[in-house]
Amino acid sequence: MTDSWLDAVKWNSDGLVPAIAQETGTGKVLTLAWMNREALATTAKEGRAIYWSRSRQKLWRKGEESGHVQLIKDIRLDCDNDAVLLRVEQQGGIACHTGREHCFYQQLQGERWVAVEPVIKSEQEIYGRK
Amino acid sequence: MTDSWLDAVKWNSDGLVPAIAQETGTGKVLTLAWMNREALATTAKEGRAIYWSRSRQKLWRKGEESGHVQLIKDIRLDCDNDAVLLRVEQQGGIACHTGREHCFYQQLQGERWVAVEPVIKSEQEIYGRK
Repeated sequence: MTDSWLDAVKWNSDGLVPAIAQETGTGKVLTLAWMNREALATTAKEGRAIYWSRSRQKLWRKGEESGHVQLIKDIRLDCDNDAVLLRVEQQGGIACHTGREHCFYQQLQGERWVAVEPVIKSEQEIYGRK
Repeated sequence: MTDSWLDAVKWNSDGLVPAIAQETGTGKVLTLAWMNREALATTAKEGRAIYWSRSRQKLWRKGEESGHVQLIKDIRLDCDNDAVLLRVEQQGGIACHTGREHCFYQQLQGERWVAVEPVIKSEQEIYGRK
């Protein structure tokens, strides 16, 4: 059974599992995205992060428009088999669609979320032309 | 509106948001757990990680049985407002209920998940007596 490793994953009722992308070297947590079975299988096969876009309801080959591909160094599964951790090399140094290094740039300060990290490239620059 | 920061979070249809715990210093991703509104509010208020246990359907004060409390250093929200990142100080150096440093100890090797990190304390040692 070549797919038994995929059967080991506890997919949720939508057939998805959350996947954390962490940058090797810096250890920065880049993003949390979602994967279905095909996304995880393809990620392992191709060695680049491929997620399931819940908004677009289709496979999302991370970096296909932005060039910000995530190369896979390591794939981990947690103790409950219901969360995945990818260790990746982030191409272009930008993981977030807002043009920041990573997605977790809003910090709780008292009772406010404050954007504490700079935009490195504008969305226009990233997505304006291909 | 003192709770507007909680309203900013996009809770899923079960009223939950995934929360990643990352160890400060080492940068190790410890665990992915879930929070409801009360869990996040209480985490911020008390400065320790408090999750929502989906299996037990109640608040889970991380470390209440094991002593492996996670002290909060930083709370972040992602660009879509639907995932939380906690930077924590992990008491006792063990985050996982299996007695490992963290929960992501199963590594994909070819087509198998292999446990690649040692058990530091047995579950019996952790939970055997209080």
